[in-house]
Amino acid sequence: MEYSSKRVRRGFSIDTQNKVININGEIFTDPSQAKVSVFDRGFLFGDSIYEVTDAYEMTPCFLEEHLDRLWISAGKLFMPINYSRDEIASEINKCLKKLNSPRAYIRIIITRGEGEITLDPSNAGRNNLIIICRSLQVNPSWWYENGVEVVIAQTKRTAIESMDPSIKSGNYLNNILAFNEAASKGAYDAIMLNHDSKITEGTTSNAWLVKDGTFYTPALKAGLLGGITRAKLIELCNENSINVKEEDITIEQLKGADEVFLTSSTKRIIPVVKIDDHIVGSGKPGSHSLNLLNLYLSKYQLPR
Amino acid sequence: MEYSSKRVRRGFSIDTQNKVININGEIFTDPSQAKVSVFDRGFLFGDSIYEVTDAYEMTPCFLEEHLDRLWISAGKLFMPINYSRDEIASEINKCLKKLNSPRAYIRIIITRGEGEITLDPSNAGRNNLIIICRSLQVNPSWWYENGVEVVIAQTKRTAIESMDPSIKSGNYLNNILAFNEAASKGAYDAIMLNHDSKITEGTTSNAWLVKDGTFYTPALKAGLLGGITRAKLIELCNENSINVKEEDITIEQLKGADEVFLTSSTKRIIPVVKIDDHIVGSGKPGSHSLNLLNLYLSKYQLPR
Repeated sequence: MEYSSKRVRRGFSIDTQNKVININGEIFTDPSQAKVSVFDRGFLFGDSIYEVTDAYEMTPCFLEEHLDRLWISAGKLFMPINYSRDEIASEINKCLKKLNSPRAYIRIIITRGEGEITLDPSNAGRNNLIIICRSLQVNPSWWYENGVEVVIAQTKRTAIESMDPSIKSGNYLNNILAFNEAASKGAYDAIMLNHDSKITEGTTSNAWLVKDGTFYTPALKAGLLGGITRAKLIELCNENSINVKEEDITIEQLKGADEVFLTSSTKRIIPVVKIDDHIVGSGKPGSHSLNLLNLYLSKYQLPR
Repeated sequence: MEYSSKRVRRGFSIDTQNKVININGEIFTDPSQAKVSVFDRGFLFGDSIYEVTDAYEMTPCFLEEHLDRLWISAGKLFMPINYSRDEIASEINKCLKKLNSPRAYIRIIITRGEGEITLDPSNAGRNNLIIICRSLQVNPSWWYENGVEVVIAQTKRTAIESMDPSIKSGNYLNNILAFNEAASKGAYDAIMLNHDSKITEGTTSNAWLVKDGTFYTPALKAGLLGGITRAKLIELCNENSINVKEEDITIEQLKGADEVFLTSSTKRIIPVVKIDDHIVGSGKPGSHSLNLLNLYLSKYQLPR
């Protein structure tokens, strides 16, 4: 059966304003023109790695740490990177100058490259480097006034033996399935458990709790991505003689906490006030979480 | 540091001959022109599903069964499909006519579409449908004369609780890591175990053994993709009063088998003669495997 070509999809459903895309050094300000080959292994297999950070007044936050992690992800996937750190930094700067926004979202994607369709990574050409920048507002004040709700996902975080969750890769269906559980219940995010039912992380964030003045976050061996913000906050706690522990956390411990929050590079600290049907602590963002946020923003001179 | 634009990658490393690509109804015969948006969720997250089959004299093999499975994958990912089965079949036919090859490889990819960068699937526009066809030779005769070698991968097959392996998706790093273990040892493929150390499947194939005249293949609940060829062979065994069992298989049982083989839609049956350092049976492709291949090709009038 033939069908009308009018039914064939042509539209582009994203906001075309305030975006700059850099593909292997070439700049695009019209998102619909920014394309990669269907033979790119990132497209075919999710055979890519990425990092996300933000920039404030043209300066990317913790870029060295993000590039360190990018190289760690590449190493764990045996993926050569044909760009130097300086080259990537330079391409980001080109985007930021073009975007010219007070705050910017930056996504750095490196794929294994293009090749014949086979799982064999040795068949890939050179990497494709894609940098996507868009203007970014400061985080909304309601996060700090009301907090957000999360669910405990039924979808388990991928086990380390299958795909080390510390690899920040283009394989995100595990997290999308968990996020979908949250979205279907009107929640902001989902907390994922490992196969031993211990807390790992949110779908794009790390998870924390405060109990009796001590901060707790799952240890990396629970199977999670070691967030840059997570690492900076642990350092900050230690500098300020605030008790902080990395250890296994159960659902009961999370729900029984005085305060719970999520952390990510662009979101900083987001207070969590409800987990499934359970109200956390007072039901309002807690003072320990907000104090830590203020210490963090102040130390690094970051906007909220 | 600025760097020379000459270092920026432009080349395309794949064979540009004998390929036809169809993107939402538009035909490309130059692979370097076949591109998708960097905002496509298939590229960003591997948020896509796919099927592979071959066509013989312009007729795709078991297309109905492959489309059934495509819809099952979509359902498990809550992914709407905006194309009808007839529309997809029609687009495949357009490619096959243009390719005009006695045998063709067909890859059907459906992504969740394009959207702002967020895990939230509801942010996606309409699907992108990409069909990649290329001419395909008959399978090499040395497979049947000498067989292939496989390894048992250290990388465990993703657990059902994290990402159901029966979803044929664009998240393939788990399989790529396993394949890489095989490639680094010069083997043809890797057999993946589940978290209970039972056999699941090859990286793009199902695994079988023959012992005392009975055929065994792991049951779906071990965590594997239910291959179309696998299902057809089970049916064929039953029709011909050949004993066939779907059950848990250990490494020891696989290595102790009289014959071992892999199956896939395009590869049919590939005899395996070595697993790690262990020689299987006589060290040559076995008569049970080759007889089953001949029965299969004969029943469905397929080329090798």
